[in-house]
Amino acid sequence: MMSLSQLQLDEIREAKQFKKQTSRATVDALEEILFEPIKVLDHGFVRVIDYMGDDSAIVQAARVSYGKGTKKINEDKGLINYLMRHWHTTPFEMCEIKLHVKLPIFIARQWIRHRTANVNEYSARYSILDKEFYIPAPENLAMQSHTNRQGRGGVLEGEEAARVLEILKNDSEQSYKHYMEMLNLNEETNEVLDPSRAGLTRELARMNLPVNYYTQWYWKVDLNNLLHFLRLRADAHAQFEIREYANAIISILEKWLPLTFEAFKNYRLNSASISEQGMGVVKRMLAGEKVTQELSGMSKREWDELMMVLEK
Amino acid sequence: MMSLSQLQLDEIREAKQFKKQTSRATVDALEEILFEPIKVLDHGFVRVIDYMGDDSAIVQAARVSYGKGTKKINEDKGLINYLMRHWHTTPFEMCEIKLHVKLPIFIARQWIRHRTANVNEYSARYSILDKEFYIPAPENLAMQSHTNRQGRGGVLEGEEAARVLEILKNDSEQSYKHYMEMLNLNEETNEVLDPSRAGLTRELARMNLPVNYYTQWYWKVDLNNLLHFLRLRADAHAQFEIREYANAIISILEKWLPLTFEAFKNYRLNSASISEQGMGVVKRMLAGEKVTQELSGMSKREWDELMMVLEK
Amino acid sequence: MMSLSQLQLDEIREAKQFKKQTSRATVDALEEILFEPIKVLDHGFVRVIDYMGDDSAIVQAARVSYGKGTKKINEDKGLINYLMRHWHTTPFEMCEIKLHVKLPIFIARQWIRHRTANVNEYSARYSILDKEFYIPAPENLAMQSHTNRQGRGGVLEGEEAARVLEILKNDSEQSYKHYMEMLNLNEETNEVLDPSRAGLTRELARMNLPVNYYTQWYWKVDLNNLLHFLRLRADAHAQFEIREYANAIISILEKWLPLTFEAFKNYRLNSASISEQGMGVVKRMLAGEKVTQELSGMSKREWDELMMVLEK
Amino acid sequence: MMSLSQLQLDEIREAKQFKKQTSRATVDALEEILFEPIKVLDHGFVRVIDYMGDDSAIVQAARVSYGKGTKKINEDKGLINYLMRHWHTTPFEMCEIKLHVKLPIFIARQWIRHRTANVNEYSARYSILDKEFYIPAPENLAMQSHTNRQGRGGVLEGEEAARVLEILKNDSEQSYKHYMEMLNLNEETNEVLDPSRAGLTRELARMNLPVNYYTQWYWKVDLNNLLHFLRLRADAHAQFEIREYANAIISILEKWLPLTFEAFKNYRLNSASISEQGMGVVKRMLAGEKVTQELSGMSKREWDELMMVLEK
Repeated sequence: MMSLSQLQLDEIREAKQFKKQTSRATVDALEEILFEPIKVLDHGFVRVIDYMGDDSAIVQAARVSYGKGTKKINEDKGLINYLMRHWHTTPFEMCEIKLHVKLPIFIARQWIRHRTANVNEYSARYSILDKEFYIPAPENLAMQSHTNRQGRGGVLEGEEAARVLEILKNDSEQSYKHYMEMLNLNEETNEVLDPSRAGLTRELARMNLPVNYYTQWYWKVDLNNLLHFLRLRADAHAQFEIREYANAIISILEKWLPLTFEAFKNYRLNSASISEQGMGVVKRMLAGEKVTQELSGMSKREWDELMMVLEK
Repeated sequence: MMSLSQLQLDEIREAKQFKKQTSRATVDALEEILFEPIKVLDHGFVRVIDYMGDDSAIVQAARVSYGKGTKKINEDKGLINYLMRHWHTTPFEMCEIKLHVKLPIFIARQWIRHRTANVNEYSARYSILDKEFYIPAPENLAMQSHTNRQGRGGVLEGEEAARVLEILKNDSEQSYKHYMEMLNLNEETNEVLDPSRAGLTRELARMNLPVNYYTQWYWKVDLNNLLHFLRLRADAHAQFEIREYANAIISILEKWLPLTFEAFKNYRLNSASISEQGMGVVKRMLAGEKVTQELSGMSKREWDELMMVLEK
Repeated sequence: MMSLSQLQLDEIREAKQFKKQTSRATVDALEEILFEPIKVLDHGFVRVIDYMGDDSAIVQAARVSYGKGTKKINEDKGLINYLMRHWHTTPFEMCEIKLHVKLPIFIARQWIRHRTANVNEYSARYSILDKEFYIPAPENLAMQSHTNRQGRGGVLEGEEAARVLEILKNDSEQSYKHYMEMLNLNEETNEVLDPSRAGLTRELARMNLPVNYYTQWYWKVDLNNLLHFLRLRADAHAQFEIREYANAIISILEKWLPLTFEAFKNYRLNSASISEQGMGVVKRMLAGEKVTQELSGMSKREWDELMMVLEK
Repeated sequence: MMSLSQLQLDEIREAKQFKKQTSRATVDALEEILFEPIKVLDHGFVRVIDYMGDDSAIVQAARVSYGKGTKKINEDKGLINYLMRHWHTTPFEMCEIKLHVKLPIFIARQWIRHRTANVNEYSARYSILDKEFYIPAPENLAMQSHTNRQGRGGVLEGEEAARVLEILKNDSEQSYKHYMEMLNLNEETNEVLDPSRAGLTRELARMNLPVNYYTQWYWKVDLNNLLHFLRLRADAHAQFEIREYANAIISILEKWLPLTFEAFKNYRLNSASISEQGMGVVKRMLAGEKVTQELSGMSKREWDELMMVLEK
C-alpha cells in the first residue's frame, strides 16, 4: 500500500521499460530497482531517480587515470579500503545519487540539517498537501528515557498507548479537516466548498498542519556526504524514524557500490573512535595492567562508554 | 510584550553593561542594540549576539592591506560601491554576524534552505516546547490569489476571517494540551501529571504540534550570504512572514554597515536584472522606436514584467 | 596533438564502444562526445566523463512529479525560462556533470575558488609531473592596460614579444630540467640518474616548477554552480585563458541541455544588471528626458558603464 | 626579520593601542597577540586579524540559552568534552576567526582544498608580487621515501644537498629577474625600465614564477572547520611545510579557547579510529587471546598500522 497512485505506478513501469544506450558507468543491480519505491514507516518511501558512477569511478578518480585500466577487482577493493581507512574524501565525492523521499515533516527537519546536498521539496505554498500523516506502530510508542534526555525508554502499553494513538489520529484528522475548510475546499473532491467564500491563501492555511504530516522531496547528494549522513543517521543515537530511512538507503548502497558498502561498514559504521586517554587505558590493559575508572582520569560516563566499546 | 522572561531580560541588561576592551573592529551603533530583541510577528524576535567586522574590514580585505590605511571615507564608499556593482563576493564574506531568532516552524523551514550558514536550533528531542504559536493579525489573513498560485490576494473579512482565526487558535491550543497530556505533564506547572503513567518520549510527542509553533535558533552567517538571503527574503515574492524577519535584519544592517547598506539598496535590493531580449527592447525604445509585445519576441507574461520594471 | 597518449586514446575508443542499457535520463548528443577531449590552449583539454540528468530532469524536479509526464516540449521550455528568469536555483542543482580538465596551474588557482564542486587533482606529492607548460600564442601576448589594472591592452610585437616567448620557454625548460635533476631522474627515460644519489622528495622538488605548468583534475559540479562559473568565467572581465575553458564547456552545455543553454544566454550571459540609480536614468530617458552624468548622481565610471550597456 | 615593512609594523602597533569598548565575548589572551605575526618557515607568517566567540559561546549555543548563565567553569569543560566526544559540530561553528597568512603557493594550493572558509588572496593579476620565495632549511631537505610514495625519507647531505639549494635559489632568482623584465620594470625600484617598451600584462607575466613564491591571504573560518583543517594538517602524514602553519594556528587556538584546545587534543588530534575488524582484534587481545595478522583477516599493511596505534 505504497502512497503512489496507480497512475504514478504505471508511469514508473513505463519509465523503467524505456531503455536507452549509454557509455556511462552503469550498475545493473541498481537499474533493477530504479524508480521503485522502498517502503519506510507507514506512508513514506525512498526511491532512486538517478545515479552517477560505480565503485570503479571512485578508483578512477583516485588514480585520475583514463578508462577502467586493467587492474583486477581485488586491487580496486584494496584501494577503496585504503581510501576509507585513511579518511580520503574527494574520490568518494565523484559518485552522486538522486533520491525521491517521502517523509514526515519532523524527520525532514532533521534531515535538512545536512547542508551539502541538493533539495527540491514539495511546496505547500503552491500546492495542497495530501491527507497523509505518520502514526507510530504500537511497538514504537516509546516512553521518555529517564537516564538520557534525548533517548527512548521502554514501550507504552495498555490505556496510555491507546490514548496516545487516539490523540495523534484525531488531531491529525481534525487539522486536515480544518486545513481544507480554511482553503474553502471539499476534503474528498478538492473542489470549492462555498462559492461565496474566498478561501485562505495556501501559504497560511498550511500552518495548521502538525509536523507528523508527510512532505516529499528530491534529494541529490554525493557519496561522501551520503556516507556521512548514513553514519550519523543509522547510528543508535539517531531517532528511530530517521534510522528507518537511513537503513533503506544503506540497502540501496549495497546494490549500488558493493565494495564501498563493505568498507563503509568496517571503517565507519561499526568502527570506534577512542580518545587519547582511552587509548592510554587500552594500552595499559593490553600490557596486563588492571586499570580502574579512578586511575584512568576519565569521568564515570566516559569510562562506561569506553567499557561498552571494549565489551568489558 | 517580548517573549523573553524577566530573568532573561535581566541577564541581557547585565551582559550589555559588562564592557571589555578590544582592539577589534567595533561598531558603536551596533553595540547599542547588542542582545536586545527586535520584535517580529506576534511572539518572534531577532537579536544580535555577536558580530565581526565593519565597513572598513571589507575594504581592508579587498586591499589585503595592513591596518586602516589613510584613505578617506569617500574612497571606502567608492570601493564598496565598486565591489557591489561588479558582484565581487569574497570581501563581503569577511564580515560575520550571529543572530538569535525566534520564528514559527513553517518560516524556519523556508529559512533553513539557505545552506551557507551555521545554526543551533532549540531541540524538541531534548526539551519541552513552550506554548507559543503564531496567529496572523487580521489584516494579514490573505485570501488565495487566483492569478498567482504562490501569492496572496485580498484580505479575508467578516465571518470567514473570524472562523479562520477561531480554527487556528483552537487547534493550536488543543494540540498543545494533547502534547502535554502525552508527555504526562501538567500544562501550567510542567510537573508530572499522573505518576502511574510513563509519558510518551519527547521526540515523538512533539509531532502533534502544528508548524505555526515557535522555535528558535542561533544563526551565524557571513555578510555575502546574508545579503543574498535578504535580497530573496525581503523581495515582494517572499512570504509576508519571512519578509518581516528580513526587514528587521535590514534595520540591523543599516546600523552595522552603513556604506554596505546603501550599496546593497542601490545595486541589489532595488536593482533590475534585464534579459538580452529585454535589453533589445530597451535599446530600441531609447532609439525612439515603438516596440510592442508582438514584435519583441517575448511572452505576454515576460513583457508585462519588463513593462512593470520600466514603469511603462 | 592532444596531450593524451595513444594508449589513452585507445582506452577512450574502447570505453565509448562498450554500451550498456540504462533507464536513466540519457542525452544522445552528449553520449557522442563522451570521453573525447576538446582542445583548449596549447596542451589543455576538457572532456566529459559522466553526467546526470537532461532538460526534463530540471522540469521534473521543479514539478516534483513522477516520470516524464505528457507535457509538450514548449511547456518544458517555458518553465525553464521561467525558472531562469526568476533566479530559481534548486531545480538546476538536479543535473550534474563530471569533467576531466587539463589546465595550467595559474588557471587552476582561479578555477578552484569556485568552492561548490568536487575535485580530484593530479598530485605532484605522489607522482612526477609531465614536461608540459603553457606558452601563449603570439596574438595573446597582451601588454598591460594602463586604464585598467586588471586588464589587457594591445598585443606585444617584434623584439619585445620574441624576448618574452624566449624567457617563458627557456625558464620552463630549465625548471623542468632542474626538477628532474633534483629528483635524480633522467629527463627522457624517467630512470634513476645516479645510483649514488638519493633524490629530493617529490613534494619538495615540484616547488621549482612555474605556474604555467599543466596540472589536471576531475571536476564534478551541479548545473546551478556550473552556470554561475560560466557566467563569471566566460565574461569579458575574466582572464583570456580561463575564458577559453569556459567557452569549451559552454559548447558542451549546448549539446547536453539545449533549452537551458538558450535560457542561460538570454537571462544570464547576455543580460544586464542595472542599479536603482541606473533604472532611474533609463526611465527618465524613456520619458524623453535628456539626462547627463552630472544630473544622474552617478560617478563618471559608473555612468560610462551604464551607457555602454545601453549602447548610447 | 618578519616580512612586514616598518610602516606595516607601525600600523600594527597603532591598531593594537586603539582600544574600544565592547559587550561582545572577548578573550584577553588573544587580544594580546592580535595583529602580531607569528613566524612560519623562512618568510611566512600567521596573524590574527579578528575573532568571534570564546569557550562560553560554544556552551551558550549548545544550550541556546541567554547570556552566560551561572554554570561553573568545570561544567563548561564537561559540556565541551561531551560535544567533542560525540562529534557534535554545530556549537563549534558558532566561533569564527580571521587570519592573515603569508605562505608559498604550493602550500596555498593544498590549503585551499578546504572549501568551507572565506578567502581574499593577494592578486597577481592586479599587483606585482614581491621577490620572496621559500628555500627549505638544510635539515628539511628530505629525500624521497621508497616505502611511501607520498612521504619523506632521510635528509639529503653534502654535495647533493648543496646542489639542490643552489638550483632552488638560482632558479627563483632568475624567474623573478625575468618576471620583472617581462613587466618592463626595474627589479630594485619597480620603475619603468625602458620607455620604448610596453611591458607584458601582469596576469601573464606571473606565470613565469615557480610555486615556491610567497602569496598571502585573509582566511576566515568557523571553529568546526578550523579543527577539521588542523586535524588533517597537523597530522604526521601532512607535508612538513603545511604542518608548520597548522602548529602555529594550534598555538593560537590554545590562547583563544583553552577548554576546546584540551578537548581537541584528547578526542581528535591524538585519538585513534579503529575499524570493526580492528576492534575485534583488540577485544580478543584483551580477553587474553594471542592474535596474529594471519588470524585477523587484515592485510599486512593494515595490521601494522593497528599495531603501531596499540604500541604492540
